[in-house]
Amino acid sequence: MPSLPDMTTPNVADLAREAAQTASAHPAVPQPDAGQEAFSEMLLRLGDSTLILGHRISEWCGHSPALEEDIALANVALDLIGQTQLWLSLAGEVEGKGRSADDLAYLRDAWDFRNLLICERPNGDFGHTLMRQFLFDAWHHELLKALAASSDPRVAEIAAKAGKEVAYHLERSSDLVVRLGDGTEESHRRMQEALDDLWSYAGEMFIGDAKDAEVAARGIAPDPSSLRAAWDQTLQHVLTEATLQIPEGSFAHKGGKQGIHTEHLGYILSEMQFLQRAYPGASW
Amino acid sequence: MPSLPDMTTPNVADLAREAAQTASAHPAVPQPDAGQEAFSEMLLRLGDSTLILGHRISEWCGHSPALEEDIALANVALDLIGQTQLWLSLAGEVEGKGRSADDLAYLRDAWDFRNLLICERPNGDFGHTLMRQFLFDAWHHELLKALAASSDPRVAEIAAKAGKEVAYHLERSSDLVVRLGDGTEESHRRMQEALDDLWSYAGEMFIGDAKDAEVAARGIAPDPSSLRAAWDQTLQHVLTEATLQIPEGSFAHKGGKQGIHTEHLGYILSEMQFLQRAYPGASW
Repeated sequence: MPSLPDMTTPNVADLAREAAQTASAHPAVPQPDAGQEAFSEMLLRLGDSTLILGHRISEWCGHSPALEEDIALANVALDLIGQTQLWLSLAGEVEGKGRSADDLAYLRDAWDFRNLLICERPNGDFGHTLMRQFLFDAWHHELLKALAASSDPRVAEIAAKAGKEVAYHLERSSDLVVRLGDGTEESHRRMQEALDDLWSYAGEMFIGDAKDAEVAARGIAPDPSSLRAAWDQTLQHVLTEATLQIPEGSFAHKGGKQGIHTEHLGYILSEMQFLQRAYPGASW
Repeated sequence: MPSLPDMTTPNVADLAREAAQTASAHPAVPQPDAGQEAFSEMLLRLGDSTLILGHRISEWCGHSPALEEDIALANVALDLIGQTQLWLSLAGEVEGKGRSADDLAYLRDAWDFRNLLICERPNGDFGHTLMRQFLFDAWHHELLKALAASSDPRVAEIAAKAGKEVAYHLERSSDLVVRLGDGTEESHRRMQEALDDLWSYAGEMFIGDAKDAEVAARGIAPDPSSLRAAWDQTLQHVLTEATLQIPEGSFAHKGGKQGIHTEHLGYILSEMQFLQRAYPGASW
């Protein structure tokens, strides 16, 4: 079920805000206008998605079926966390409340996170993790190509850097999806099950809202729906080669981009944020 | 691997102590003598074991194979958490530093916990959870019988109350171990596997150290090794009826009572303590 604020403790948002202010060494700067709010929201959606997926993949560290895969997955996780650092730093800068990337990553609760729901899905088996990665990479790659032409030069610069990494992620996940989909009977079955399971979490990547429309109108980011055709084409190409059947349903779980999450996110945050929550301001 | 303090952040203990002091509304009282330290340590070992096992069992809530079992397991968890409240309150009182049961439960880190390692073992399947419960209940029952004759009347009073609850826990877990052990081929196999898996975590219950010796000498608690014969007898009786084979090995994992834990405890604490860590002092 969605993780919502607890009505019996109405002061949690204030407490979190206090904690964030205490932890931040940055001076307060002027409040953003409405346009900046949509822009910082877009950046949170990007940074939170790479943060949560990066954390999820990092759970495989030391547990993958082969050393090469273990190292490769850990590297993808590191790339995504590195991109998070850039997106969330910029989100804090655009927001103008003096919050650093660390403040945003470690001192917000579930309802303030804006990641896509697919990023918080449990890993399942290795094939399931790779299928989630492929579906995400194929979208991420198209998104970063479009963002590299952003009207905001800071966005364009981060997207150009991240795009190179993600081109490699997509190459790798595509290759493995083909090898496992067109592999043994069992690996084929598992990959098809993963695709069927995850399918209803893919649609959210292409659903826009008023904030998406606003940043699209300003040329900062593409309209989410504009990325669908190229994503469909990548899937068609890779999944056909993998001998997998693309599901027909068009139902899409949504809400992550607006802060309505599944119960999984809370468990991720409690683990990810433990150090900063237990030892506020600890550094090394 | 054991969860140890991070050498790169040597100030964590100070930070934790500060946090605990900030969160406590109690006035400072005189430091305990050495005898009181062994006594409060004994109470932490008791309260931490019931807390961590209670938390583990609560993970089954809503997931058990039958409604009746779901409610029964949740009730056992509640009993254990209720006992925790009594033991940790007394631990704080004896310690004399003004820490409440809540402070002790929510504001200590892994290396300050004193629970038996068997309490932090993952649940595994339903049979595994019940076998862990049976091994624990059989010990817990004997321990509380002995503690009901404690030279400290506060301990004797809590033990008499808890003993009634635990007599029921043992009756229930014994019954289910017999039904599943002497059940289908699959249930038998799973129960035997659970027993074999958990066996090396049972021995710690009977291993004493200098602090145990001190409270035993003062008549506050029994020597841990004195509980073994009755426990062996309960196992002999129940496991024979369950058609299960008692493993032969005498190797015992230990360290929990001294604060050296497996990696599982950290994950339990990060989840259990999230609310108080994220919203310090929150109440309802």
